[in-house]
Amino acid sequence: MSMSRVIKGSLVVLAISIIAPNKPLQTLLAFSILGYLITVSLIPKLMASFMKIGLKGKDLSKPPPVTEIAESMGIVSSVTYLFLMFGLIPFIFFKYLVTFTALSNDSVISDNYTDQYSSLSNNKLFPHNKLSEYLSAVLCLQSTVLLGLFDDLFDIRWRHKFFLPAVASLPLLIVYYVDFSVTSIVVPKFVTDLLPGGDLLLELLNQVIRLGNHLVTKITGLSFSTLPNDYEYSHDQPKLLDLGIFYYVYMSAISIFSPNSINILAGINGLEVGQSIILGIIFLINDFCYLLSPGVPQAAHDSHLFSAIFIIPFIGVSIALFQFNFFPARVFVGDTYCYFSGMVFAIVGILGHFSKTLLIFLLPQIINFVYSVPQIFGLVPCPRHRLPKFNLSDGLMYPSFGQLKKLTPVSKAMLLVLEKFKLIKLTRDEKTNQIVAFSNMTIINLTLVWFGPLREDHLCVLIMTLQLLIGVSMIVVRHTVGPWLFGFDNLTWGVK
Amino acid sequence: MSMSRVIKGSLVVLAISIIAPNKPLQTLLAFSILGYLITVSLIPKLMASFMKIGLKGKDLSKPPPVTEIAESMGIVSSVTYLFLMFGLIPFIFFKYLVTFTALSNDSVISDNYTDQYSSLSNNKLFPHNKLSEYLSAVLCLQSTVLLGLFDDLFDIRWRHKFFLPAVASLPLLIVYYVDFSVTSIVVPKFVTDLLPGGDLLLELLNQVIRLGNHLVTKITGLSFSTLPNDYEYSHDQPKLLDLGIFYYVYMSAISIFSPNSINILAGINGLEVGQSIILGIIFLINDFCYLLSPGVPQAAHDSHLFSAIFIIPFIGVSIALFQFNFFPARVFVGDTYCYFSGMVFAIVGILGHFSKTLLIFLLPQIINFVYSVPQIFGLVPCPRHRLPKFNLSDGLMYPSFGQLKKLTPVSKAMLLVLEKFKLIKLTRDEKTNQIVAFSNMTIINLTLVWFGPLREDHLCVLIMTLQLLIGVSMIVVRHTVGPWLFGFDNLTWGVK
Repeated sequence: MSMSRVIKGSLVVLAISIIAPNKPLQTLLAFSILGYLITVSLIPKLMASFMKIGLKGKDLSKPPPVTEIAESMGIVSSVTYLFLMFGLIPFIFFKYLVTFTALSNDSVISDNYTDQYSSLSNNKLFPHNKLSEYLSAVLCLQSTVLLGLFDDLFDIRWRHKFFLPAVASLPLLIVYYVDFSVTSIVVPKFVTDLLPGGDLLLELLNQVIRLGNHLVTKITGLSFSTLPNDYEYSHDQPKLLDLGIFYYVYMSAISIFSPNSINILAGINGLEVGQSIILGIIFLINDFCYLLSPGVPQAAHDSHLFSAIFIIPFIGVSIALFQFNFFPARVFVGDTYCYFSGMVFAIVGILGHFSKTLLIFLLPQIINFVYSVPQIFGLVPCPRHRLPKFNLSDGLMYPSFGQLKKLTPVSKAMLLVLEKFKLIKLTRDEKTNQIVAFSNMTIINLTLVWFGPLREDHLCVLIMTLQLLIGVSMIVVRHTVGPWLFGFDNLTWGVK
Repeated sequence: MSMSRVIKGSLVVLAISIIAPNKPLQTLLAFSILGYLITVSLIPKLMASFMKIGLKGKDLSKPPPVTEIAESMGIVSSVTYLFLMFGLIPFIFFKYLVTFTALSNDSVISDNYTDQYSSLSNNKLFPHNKLSEYLSAVLCLQSTVLLGLFDDLFDIRWRHKFFLPAVASLPLLIVYYVDFSVTSIVVPKFVTDLLPGGDLLLELLNQVIRLGNHLVTKITGLSFSTLPNDYEYSHDQPKLLDLGIFYYVYMSAISIFSPNSINILAGINGLEVGQSIILGIIFLINDFCYLLSPGVPQAAHDSHLFSAIFIIPFIGVSIALFQFNFFPARVFVGDTYCYFSGMVFAIVGILGHFSKTLLIFLLPQIINFVYSVPQIFGLVPCPRHRLPKFNLSDGLMYPSFGQLKKLTPVSKAMLLVLEKFKLIKLTRDEKTNQIVAFSNMTIINLTLVWFGPLREDHLCVLIMTLQLLIGVSMIVVRHTVGPWLFGFDNLTWGVK
């Protein structure tokens, strides 16, 4: 225990010593370390309080006697993160503050005072719009934590809670509207080049959307388009499609999808936090492609610095939570953390203007969702829990099965196709050869069908590893196939 | 019930019909009505859920059988308020959006698109700094609600929770620093005019503070002063004192004091919300002095519009809560509401640059605090609860008493002085004529000493009325004695 204190102490000193205003990445690393330390110290202290007010649960995949452990402890990570993000503001906006050379000598200080004073009157020196973006992002995350907390406390019904992230993302969308409001997306070059009449099609689509926007403007008095009416398509520039109001629908959809997709890829110790950490690492690798490459346009550089600002401290607080949530779990993370984590990625993707890249990084979650669709929409039965089954005798996890009573021809065909491609395991009645059960349709169960049985921790690490491999391949695809499809790569060419 | 639905329905229609972008006060009224309606509908629906997770309590001032009622229902008001403030953003910043004339005809829309598009690149048209202020205020309130919620849930110790508002106000102070950073205050004219060598004194004080600032700058690398070194005092302008870092200490102190002062003036049905509503009304009267007077400088006008923006919807959600919390209370409000409400006033005072005016409006709360000091700091004993005593036989409230065992000479002298000015009621032993008990030192008990016994609702209304009278007198004092003291009134002269 005293050893761990020494380590913690040294980490604090390290963190403080590497805080360097002016050098955002160093400062972010320091804040990440601080976030880790605060979370790792607070969680054990707060476990009892959480359990006392009923935030507790039983781990179903452990041998008896099963004791209850604290639930919703992800709140600690999330709130620590929020306060770190407040503390980061002066450092992130430091280079715009007129003080960073103020240490050298007095005449400099005096000049800086004057500059700062004059900057107050004409607002020229300070990037207020970037500050608004930053604040709206933190506001959106805080709303997410607040609503997630209500979900953890009051057990909101599934059909209501599915939309909670959309409510929480309102501040982001509204600030995006008043402050930023770019609603056009780049159309892949092959659409206009390879399709006959691609340019015409694009122009037509633009006109249809413009009509929709026009209607919305008539009704609400708010305009949702940023492309000037006389915008001309030229051949040497990428093609733009101005989505207008539909861009907001799209952003809202992302803010719903991202948190929920993390929330449904869950059920074994450590997986909610583990997948979030891997996602964070994938995002960071992509960000560093931009931050470290020479010749990246300023806009793309800033977008990915913004992304790094939100991701690096996030990884710090998440690792601390992972330590307690990994096998054998001493705490559960709760819905708050899943929403919060998904929203961090949604925000970074939306404000960093790489929401399509966000979606390819979320591929494992998307696959999990698509794979779940037949069960979620009732094509085949969906038991209340689809966790893998814990086998007491060997301590390993096995795929869990959904029982079939009757089977429509469509469902049967689907199951047989999935079986053919080894994407499901079916159990048949020995006498009638009828399908009586199928492995539950989550990628956790599928992993067990392929590689199982596995111990819970090995299963979690295996899924995380697969996710990392997919993510890294996606980064490669993004910067090789992407440029070919879109006609340019913003690693070297700026849209804005 | 169906009648109340009809009323609610009509109010919704009314609210929607008066929403007028471009006319902030009308829109604020509409949002206030909506806030009232949402809160009044949600509270009865959520009572059971709150009680289910243990947020419940007994009302000690009611005849038996005392049933438990839901506690911390102020959360509903607060969260409703926060989401209203998000929704307000497009309306408040509407006149800066290029769309409000977009309804007229197509060529206008087209022009507006172009303007909006070009405004994205040079950031000239949009008041980003005002948006940052607004967002930081909402962020601060949301942090307050989050921390207040933790207090309600986990019963944080008194010595910790006293400082919670300071933690919650961090986003405000930090954004104030990076975005606004005016740290000078106006010094009353009489100080420099009447005191011999007043100007010299002021100059000296400025130098001492500058030294303090300089030290802080050396250590942290951040500068906290906004007055240029060559700032010259001239005789026709008000004198400025640049507090620098101490201005942040001062703002932090206000954000601690305001919420806590509302939290300790509590204990009878309706008083926490009631005093907040009265405070809101007092603030609004003061704001309208500025908003409706001709010739008010733009800066003062904007500050008080900012104040009205935050106060008007606040009154809406508070009235709804008051309806349920007033005698006989069907819900308790909880600490969240008190913090939240106090923080609304603190923010408005800080960002509106009238934090001194804020303090004179909080006079009843300040008196209550000062009057409580002897008990809080243990000069005389302080029982766990200082609520007035409910008398079962006549259903009225009587002052409650603290029992004395021994008495130091200082405490005795203090009690006797207070008694002489009728500011306390003492009970003496019939034989020895020794003081054995004293009415607990809160203005609730003092009101009962003066006007009691009273029924709980009459007591609440009486205190609210006194508060309103004091507040209105203070507005008069502010604009009559104030200008005489300070040498100017910002109703007619702008500092900024």
